[in-house]
Amino acid sequence: MPKRENISMSVIRRLPRYYRFLSELKDSGVVRISSRELSQKMGLTASQIRQDLNCFGGFGQQGYGYIVEQLQLEIGNILGLSSSYRSILIGAGNLGRAVATHMSFEARGFTLCAIFDKNPALIGENIRGITIQSITELEHFCKDCKIDMAVLCVPQDSVAELADRIYSLGIKNYWNFSHFDLASKFPDVVVENVHLSDSLMTLCYRITNSQSSI
Amino acid sequence: MPKRENISMSVIRRLPRYYRFLSELKDSGVVRISSRELSQKMGLTASQIRQDLNCFGGFGQQGYGYIVEQLQLEIGNILGLSSSYRSILIGAGNLGRAVATHMSFEARGFTLCAIFDKNPALIGENIRGITIQSITELEHFCKDCKIDMAVLCVPQDSVAELADRIYSLGIKNYWNFSHFDLASKFPDVVVENVHLSDSLMTLCYRITNSQSSI
Repeated sequence: MPKRENISMSVIRRLPRYYRFLSELKDSGVVRISSRELSQKMGLTASQIRQDLNCFGGFGQQGYGYIVEQLQLEIGNILGLSSSYRSILIGAGNLGRAVATHMSFEARGFTLCAIFDKNPALIGENIRGITIQSITELEHFCKDCKIDMAVLCVPQDSVAELADRIYSLGIKNYWNFSHFDLASKFPDVVVENVHLSDSLMTLCYRITNSQSSI
Repeated sequence: MPKRENISMSVIRRLPRYYRFLSELKDSGVVRISSRELSQKMGLTASQIRQDLNCFGGFGQQGYGYIVEQLQLEIGNILGLSSSYRSILIGAGNLGRAVATHMSFEARGFTLCAIFDKNPALIGENIRGITIQSITELEHFCKDCKIDMAVLCVPQDSVAELADRIYSLGIKNYWNFSHFDLASKFPDVVVENVHLSDSLMTLCYRITNSQSSI
């Protein structure tokens, strides 16, 4: 397997899509698929798929295609989905609740260990078996329990101060729904930003310019 | 201004990011910025920025840079943000609530006109001044009021049947949080899919492979 150092983010960002499509194929009972068929389903070229997978050593056989379950497993391994990175979620408003409730953390390489909020009315409430704790408990909780990743679902005006606290606890990985540029403040962190408004603006562009391609 | 027919989705997807960065610069009082400074802030190359903007006619002046407010306005116009596309949101669970509450639809080219759910317990409730209606009212509502876009925040098992209903009402644009491949069922629609789990899996990859670049 080649080193994974110089793989572009565009390739990396396609991996979850491959994983998702392969999981759907597997669930619908497809055992084997050619790179041509897979490419048609995904709106990519067959050569793009081959190039992407070659970054990780290449899979499948010329003229035979891919074994769906095997390729899904391999891509899951590349993504690290069997990890159990310990994560906490901060901000149990609608967005935090939606994320905590709908996301299969466990199937995506994470365990959700705790949920924090500063609103006293929410503390003690239960979301999928996890009791919401006061944000004042953050340091205490993280002292006992090494945390790998924090999900930030707090409003923009709370996030700057909070980010300092979390960072000083040694947490270096973030799934960031708050509009705050963590990476420029802390250059050594790994941040995956979710900007829903970018997606809505892209849709606006596509409607305005009637572009139906994905 | 050149035609906007063959602009790649990668360029289009960067436009909201430009808009976002420029809005932040404007809010912090920056009047003018060189393409080099802007590129450093955004983690792109200056030549990439010039190339992207050239797709829309080019802005800024060699050696002078960009007037922040002017460029932000121009990109807003390209995105169509001053439109008021009439939209409805379907599914008022946590995710739908989060989207309805947190998103500035109006600043992104849309007006949120109605919210629907099938859960009788939610009907009549108010989210940012909009009363949740029963999904049985959908056809009636859309007969009186031309709708341009539907936001889908319903669980996967409800979406297939619902999609048929919405499509038959003539709605051809979707902001889709439901895991259902609308575009392959209805090839003439414009769909912007939000796959939060792809983002979480990308984070898992980056932690596993300790890649901190964006």
